[in-house]
Amino acid sequence: MIAIGIDLGGTNIKAALVHENNGFIETLSIPTNADQGKEHVFDRIAMAVEELRKLYHYKPVGIGMGLPGMVHLDRQTVKNPPNLPGWKVENVANELKKRTGLNCVIENDANLAALGSARFGAGKNFEDFIMITLGTGVGGGIIIGNKIYRGTKGMAGELGHVIINYHGPLSNSNTRGGIEAYLGQRFLSRFAADTIRQHDDNPLFVKFHKDFEKLEPIDLYDAATSGNELAVDILRQAGEKLGYAIVNYIHILDIRKIIISGGVAKAGDLLLRPAYKTASKLLMPPFLEDFEILYESLGNDAALLGAASLAFDELH
Amino acid sequence: MIAIGIDLGGTNIKAALVHENNGFIETLSIPTNADQGKEHVFDRIAMAVEELRKLYHYKPVGIGMGLPGMVHLDRQTVKNPPNLPGWKVENVANELKKRTGLNCVIENDANLAALGSARFGAGKNFEDFIMITLGTGVGGGIIIGNKIYRGTKGMAGELGHVIINYHGPLSNSNTRGGIEAYLGQRFLSRFAADTIRQHDDNPLFVKFHKDFEKLEPIDLYDAATSGNELAVDILRQAGEKLGYAIVNYIHILDIRKIIISGGVAKAGDLLLRPAYKTASKLLMPPFLEDFEILYESLGNDAALLGAASLAFDELH
Repeated sequence: MIAIGIDLGGTNIKAALVHENNGFIETLSIPTNADQGKEHVFDRIAMAVEELRKLYHYKPVGIGMGLPGMVHLDRQTVKNPPNLPGWKVENVANELKKRTGLNCVIENDANLAALGSARFGAGKNFEDFIMITLGTGVGGGIIIGNKIYRGTKGMAGELGHVIINYHGPLSNSNTRGGIEAYLGQRFLSRFAADTIRQHDDNPLFVKFHKDFEKLEPIDLYDAATSGNELAVDILRQAGEKLGYAIVNYIHILDIRKIIISGGVAKAGDLLLRPAYKTASKLLMPPFLEDFEILYESLGNDAALLGAASLAFDELH
Repeated sequence: MIAIGIDLGGTNIKAALVHENNGFIETLSIPTNADQGKEHVFDRIAMAVEELRKLYHYKPVGIGMGLPGMVHLDRQTVKNPPNLPGWKVENVANELKKRTGLNCVIENDANLAALGSARFGAGKNFEDFIMITLGTGVGGGIIIGNKIYRGTKGMAGELGHVIINYHGPLSNSNTRGGIEAYLGQRFLSRFAADTIRQHDDNPLFVKFHKDFEKLEPIDLYDAATSGNELAVDILRQAGEKLGYAIVNYIHILDIRKIIISGGVAKAGDLLLRPAYKTASKLLMPPFLEDFEILYESLGNDAALLGAASLAFDELH
């Protein structure tokens, strides 16, 4: 069985022809040209689909597509997706069916990263797991019985907005002390800058003190792996915060496999080990059995593979 | 259809004959005599069952039983239940089947209160809801699609141990700043005492200053409803904490109906209104649609009705 996965972003349309067991057959990426309006974007997606179909003699089961924003429970319609100017309530599935003749199902992109992990990545061995995506923001997807758990209205898994300290810093949203306010890229960078400012002999101070805006989590990671103790300590503190959030997810859901994905997660063990240690200390003891934090190495491919997985699961 | 519900506690065995639509036909309560050992307790439960069966000419579908402690995913076996000395890993269902000839299924009592609410109480109109039980501790049950959500290993819904402030006070468990550390009876009383001590002209100070150990949440409620502003303020602060926890449940689960049960919940609107207000302020706006906090008026009957509901759901 093959399917087409699409990852629609404000800048690029990524598309892939995917085999149900073997993963990518072919991928391509073209500019979205979002400023030319939605009809143009639909045409471009259809173009990418046709391009990929030419490569294979079997008919794909359909198109799975991930996009940012609120996807309706009908899994066809999206409402006001960010970064796609002029889009209101759009039945994306219909538009693509009209243009390609293929059935189409859509989903929020954070959920699709989890689904990609479930079929092709670190989640392959687990029926239930929680994926935490550490990127610009903190997103999540909950997999229960190999399926995305959506909740009553389809919005479950807003893991970044889980409060760990109601006195804590504000994040983008109106929530104070959500885990995103500690681990979102911008917040982690700001916390790091505040810490580094107090150590004017540290190489990170020397490198960034003229413009701390340029400090990114990857710089912390690089410094930490080359022995900068201050960077190790900053990542440890961030990891502890992640540990508190994980305690909350597990005490509510009793799902004991946590998979971390996304940019900040590249800090690897420097972040995940303190998270594991903190969560292990705070979880009720029976929850420790089989508790594990894993790293998803699929990177950005997870969402694209997840888009195709959605088609395998729902359109076959 | 009728079933027998049992609520096994360390002090009393409560039992009921329940009709699937009409609720209680008959209830009884006998001492557990837990100190006389488990065989004796099984015999007493069987005695209560026989007593109830005599009252009705149809055969019950079976026995549903709630008890404290960790219930195995097989729903027959319990491990080291608190308040039942000498119990280790016990196949309770087998023991009762042997003695009564009826099939039996068991469940943790906090989950059963939610199930009772789902069939006979405030949860009747909702397929999905979260029940928070405010008693000595803070417990919970999650209902998804009219069923108890159990998680991978059967322990989901430990809502009292969800952290709202990692700097916060310690609770019974090793978790710091869990919602139980604010709303558990003992913790709420202690917080109230600390506040009242600073107001030596307040009637609550006058009444309790010689022994604040005697101050119970119900005293706060009584004082608040008779116009004691300090008591109103203490309950408001507790309600706000509850609001933070509710934000966490909803952002993870996307279940928007919250039902509050148990002793502390008797504070009613004085607690629930601040909780609602706080949660409404902090939830991401799309989650506000259909968000509601309700009060379960079944009280202690919820768990007993839930025990029978379990039998209806799983043994019919």
